Amino acid sequence: MKTEILRKYAELIARCGLNVQEGQEVMITADLDQPEFVTMCVEECYRAGAKKVIVDWVHQKVTKLHYENQSLETLSHLEKWQLERWQWQTEQLPCKLFIESDDPDGLAGIDQEKVSNARQKWFPLIKPYRDKMENRYSWCIAAVPGKAWAKKVFPELSEESAVEALWDAILKTSRALEGEPLENWKEHNADLKRRYDYLNALKLRSLHYESANGTNLTVGLIDGCNFLGGGETTMGGQFFNPNIPSEEIFTTPRAGEAEGIVYATKPLSYQGQLIENFWIRFEDGRAVEVGAEKNEALLRKMISMDDGAAKLGECALIPYDSPINNTGILFFNTLFDENASCHLALGHGFSNLLEGFENLTMEECYARGINDSMIHVDFMIGSSDLNITGTTSTGATVPIFRNGAWAF
Amino acid sequence: MKTEILRKYAELIARCGLNVQEGQEVMITADLDQPEFVTMCVEECYRAGAKKVIVDWVHQKVTKLHYENQSLETLSHLEKWQLERWQWQTEQLPCKLFIESDDPDGLAGIDQEKVSNARQKWFPLIKPYRDKMENRYSWCIAAVPGKAWAKKVFPELSEESAVEALWDAILKTSRALEGEPLENWKEHNADLKRRYDYLNALKLRSLHYESANGTNLTVGLIDGCNFLGGGETTMGGQFFNPNIPSEEIFTTPRAGEAEGIVYATKPLSYQGQLIENFWIRFEDGRAVEVGAEKNEALLRKMISMDDGAAKLGECALIPYDSPINNTGILFFNTLFDENASCHLALGHGFSNLLEGFENLTMEECYARGINDSMIHVDFMIGSSDLNITGTTSTGATVPIFRNGAWAF
Repeated sequence: MKTEILRKYAELIARCGLNVQEGQEVMITADLDQPEFVTMCVEECYRAGAKKVIVDWVHQKVTKLHYENQSLETLSHLEKWQLERWQWQTEQLPCKLFIESDDPDGLAGIDQEKVSNARQKWFPLIKPYRDKMENRYSWCIAAVPGKAWAKKVFPELSEESAVEALWDAILKTSRALEGEPLENWKEHNADLKRRYDYLNALKLRSLHYESANGTNLTVGLIDGCNFLGGGETTMGGQFFNPNIPSEEIFTTPRAGEAEGIVYATKPLSYQGQLIENFWIRFEDGRAVEVGAEKNEALLRKMISMDDGAAKLGECALIPYDSPINNTGILFFNTLFDENASCHLALGHGFSNLLEGFENLTMEECYARGINDSMIHVDFMIGSSDLNITGTTSTGATVPIFRNGAWAF
Repeated sequence: MKTEILRKYAELIARCGLNVQEGQEVMITADLDQPEFVTMCVEECYRAGAKKVIVDWVHQKVTKLHYENQSLETLSHLEKWQLERWQWQTEQLPCKLFIESDDPDGLAGIDQEKVSNARQKWFPLIKPYRDKMENRYSWCIAAVPGKAWAKKVFPELSEESAVEALWDAILKTSRALEGEPLENWKEHNADLKRRYDYLNALKLRSLHYESANGTNLTVGLIDGCNFLGGGETTMGGQFFNPNIPSEEIFTTPRAGEAEGIVYATKPLSYQGQLIENFWIRFEDGRAVEVGAEKNEALLRKMISMDDGAAKLGECALIPYDSPINNTGILFFNTLFDENASCHLALGHGFSNLLEGFENLTMEECYARGINDSMIHVDFMIGSSDLNITGTTSTGATVPIFRNGAWAF
């Protein structure tokens, strides 16, 4: 990929994704797949005024070795210095950039029970820090092609061509291949805002999903909880774009209000393994039954990670003919596939969608119906015949989606 | 390079370099040049029994951006969590592996005054931890080819061929290309031991260096301070090989006893820049005058880093026809070039060479004449006509080197 295009993509991430402010610190987590591009991101963060940029390089193959060789006790232990580092984050509130490139199936074969159990053990140790930081810092997830990921998406191509094709797909869907990316996103954010302003005016209290694939689900919404899309704003007033790309308009449902069954329409990469052709049945807001053609045990473990893992944290609306879905590419990566398809998420909800969230504690947000969990896992449910109907506070019904597209 | 050869090299590093013991933790610092090989090292450390392996990936190009963009204050600041991490090291004493692959001139063009000043500011913060850990943990420096380094060594080759040629040179000089590396090193360590046992029996009190290039230097040695080579032993009794490769027999001189002038015979990569064609004049044990054709200011800054930086910390003996020098390759990397040539080091000395060091505090070691400094920088002085003559405690002179080779 041409250097000048990558440079603009890096600038987009620093200026629009994180929107780094003068004197801020930045933490970047990245795998080793595209060091040149990550270096560009570091440079663009400094250009935007960062005081200090820290890169936490990770490597999925090394991660796999850790899971294979460390005891559960070692995997779930956090040293004092690691907790101090979380404490430092709550005080400094660095911008956090996550650059994804993992093989969607790169942790296949490892003991997922062990991985999940370790996470269950260490999460309570970091939860106080996570809760303290929530909605207070800017963050962004973006992607670069890893070799294994590219081969998974384009198995018919050589490794080199697959990487190039995935660069192309990433940049195109991220509106960073043509024109001025920063301008593209200004326009895009404005488009999304028009859409969610309309939805917010409806004062919806529930959504009903229906499709010929069997999906038949009703989800309760929270009074005074908004839809949002594109850019968001931290409590301190920093506007940022948490996902590049992003096509979704989303809200966070009321934890404990979901009834019916939903069929996934794309595979899900979770903890480095693919869960395929699955469905989830909800009763009283909880996932009570699941089925999957591949990795059903992993799905079952996922929804039992903690009390909130079986409850919904997100309802996101994306037309079936979205630019990402129209590429015809199955990315096997949630950042892209979630933006190609209506989706739901199990797990943690978005407290910043509550009106007046700036003045609420996390406990108050949870009490208002925001779900609390260590996980937040999107899964895709969009199809060309998906109908979604909203019900307002007065009991009126409003068509939201018809045949996979916006009904308004 | 063939996978099975690299696998044996990784095993050599884990078993002979670090000699990882069951249940130990391991820290690896590596650049991004050879992630497959670093991953192999992680695996071999686990196979050797490591409880946990931490990889600190670094990237020289990102390091350069830090130096260019951070203020001196930011560069020299250590967060509380970073000091906690040092504290954790003093408690856990993890094995520490450093895998080198840097471009020897990769930080050219940056403000070396700023880099040095930052180091002067943060070093006092970590010195208490360093002193507490000294001689208590196993460590190893080994190398893998980086692209820029390989092109520097083999400018006439394509990048790919240069990397392959440097792999070949690294593995050959590390005794890891042929036979069984672990066996090769057992034999090699025994050879080196025979050599330093002989030297230790001489009870030398000084060394005089002389060469037609102008070198004429006398260095004082410490009573009860040994020569060593190859493997070493931690206070806890863990035998390890701190350098792969290693050809040197070395001792630590008495800080403050050096008189005369010495001419470097190879370039020196220091803080990512090459210092070339230089000389150093000593008076009363201190470097009082220096000259260099390239980067003289950097050399001058180097010897003024702290009080010990102008004093000697090491005298190492390697015949001019050593296997590494016989490759005819100038590596522009101290790990290799120091093993191709007699060298001295400015800065920190080796307290573990003192007889009975296990029962001495660092302060007591310094009082016995071991130099204390934040730096330890080897520079090469070997030549085909170098003569080294020892003087014993009885005043007798003993030829140690004649015409660049062992005289015994």
